[in-house]
Amino acid sequence: MTRLAPDRRADYRPFLVISTRWMDNDVYGHVNNVVYYSYFDTVVNQYLVERGVLDIDHGAVIGLVVETRCHYFRPIAFPDVVHAGLRVARLGNSSVRYEIGIFRNDEMRAAARGHFVHVYVDRASNRPTPLSAQFRAALEPLAG
Amino acid sequence: MTRLAPDRRADYRPFLVISTRWMDNDVYGHVNNVVYYSYFDTVVNQYLVERGVLDIDHGAVIGLVVETRCHYFRPIAFPDVVHAGLRVARLGNSSVRYEIGIFRNDEMRAAARGHFVHVYVDRASNRPTPLSAQFRAALEPLAG
Amino acid sequence: MTRLAPDRRADYRPFLVISTRWMDNDVYGHVNNVVYYSYFDTVVNQYLVERGVLDIDHGAVIGLVVETRCHYFRPIAFPDVVHAGLRVARLGNSSVRYEIGIFRNDEMRAAARGHFVHVYVDRASNRPTPLSAQFRAALEPLAG
Amino acid sequence: MTRLAPDRRADYRPFLVISTRWMDNDVYGHVNNVVYYSYFDTVVNQYLVERGVLDIDHGAVIGLVVETRCHYFRPIAFPDVVHAGLRVARLGNSSVRYEIGIFRNDEMRAAARGHFVHVYVDRASNRPTPLSAQFRAALEPLAG
Repeated sequence: MTRLAPDRRADYRPFLVISTRWMDNDVYGHVNNVVYYSYFDTVVNQYLVERGVLDIDHGAVIGLVVETRCHYFRPIAFPDVVHAGLRVARLGNSSVRYEIGIFRNDEMRAAARGHFVHVYVDRASNRPTPLSAQFRAALEPLAG
Repeated sequence: MTRLAPDRRADYRPFLVISTRWMDNDVYGHVNNVVYYSYFDTVVNQYLVERGVLDIDHGAVIGLVVETRCHYFRPIAFPDVVHAGLRVARLGNSSVRYEIGIFRNDEMRAAARGHFVHVYVDRASNRPTPLSAQFRAALEPLAG
Repeated sequence: MTRLAPDRRADYRPFLVISTRWMDNDVYGHVNNVVYYSYFDTVVNQYLVERGVLDIDHGAVIGLVVETRCHYFRPIAFPDVVHAGLRVARLGNSSVRYEIGIFRNDEMRAAARGHFVHVYVDRASNRPTPLSAQFRAALEPLAG
Repeated sequence: MTRLAPDRRADYRPFLVISTRWMDNDVYGHVNNVVYYSYFDTVVNQYLVERGVLDIDHGAVIGLVVETRCHYFRPIAFPDVVHAGLRVARLGNSSVRYEIGIFRNDEMRAAARGHFVHVYVDRASNRPTPLSAQFRAALEPLAG
């Protein structure tokens, strides 16, 4: 059984506001299914960068994506504003399962929800590496 | 339990060859996780268009994506060529679960695999509509 | 000779704030040259939608892009915030030449500048159509 | 005056075949103006990689994009196949102006044409560096 991420705003913290773009809309006039995943890796990585635990250019540890998933409930369309909520569903030894709720404008129920699993590896060797204490401390507030 | 799509070339038919693009690569030098989903909806929709059962501009029935998922095994990088294999895992009354294997160049094991669930709806009313006999006939060879 | 758009914030009005995304960065760690054009058509179309002179789904008149150009001065990188400034350089009978300045975070000199030429056509016939009085009124404040 | 790239197939060599993707189409049912630029940097970089004069991951010299432009003549739409023709309009000391013709399926007149200017810089210092003899040799056949 696949446990689904919840879909109320109260189930997530923090939120990142993401502007939609003209080209996000596909031929049916709604944000294309692919684009939601760009919101997912934006909210995850931006959180990590802002907390100082991911240095994209020079860090010794990087996150590799091993699994992603999305359920789509209601359409979003440019120029809507996306509010991407984040939570941590599992904080493993070297991996993290993030859950994301995608909310449209001021709506309170998620338009979509998904998950995103990162394995953290040594940039040079590409081998999994245990999460540092600093990294765990940055994520624990999201793991409630 | 989530049944995973298989990962050998023999498990899929047909295949679509998709060229990678410079901008598919992300900062770590590999095709970004998001881009795999653009391969998924390309192989599904191109199959439907070529079989004459999806008319993007004028058809009365369109496919809405309700769920997608991807497991990533090995990296792909521009200028690799992607071979996207398709199969139908479930042919429902008004929905189809497609499974996709993503193969890099001439490799025989999938670099990634995923699924993609379409619900077919009436374009005007947005309500699910039973798959036509013609549509089912186009997909049955993939459902074996 | 190609007249270049100016590159100070004071040369543009209005501004649209656009969030960058993880996948905007290419392998060299900066926003890929292609992505700037997605900022261009976002700022133009969002302005038109918000002024009520472009109805993406149902309007009788749509804008076709006939020419675009960009000069790149300084890099931008996720998670920077983009401030896209807009101006109208030429308000023709059925076409508009927009100029866009792309500013990074709180920088005062443009990181890039470009133009974007729309010809407005009848959606059904695809033939150029004179700009309506309402449309001209919406753009005149940008044509200073 | 802006010299425009020519628009017959005979004006370009070599050609790269690029598959379109479902999400290339925008809400008006045609390949979005932004996406053409992804064809441009794909054909340029793929040519350089295949000739062995660009090593994306480890090369000491990389190409920075300083200017791009595109004129759009006729629409392309998924699932069309793009044939991207390349030529070199100017081979400078440390920069190259490429011209690209975008042809739809088996059409003989370009659907779009554009240019793409690369300045080659040292990856570490970011300063322009003269083109190597090997690099010039790779491009001279396109400069005819």
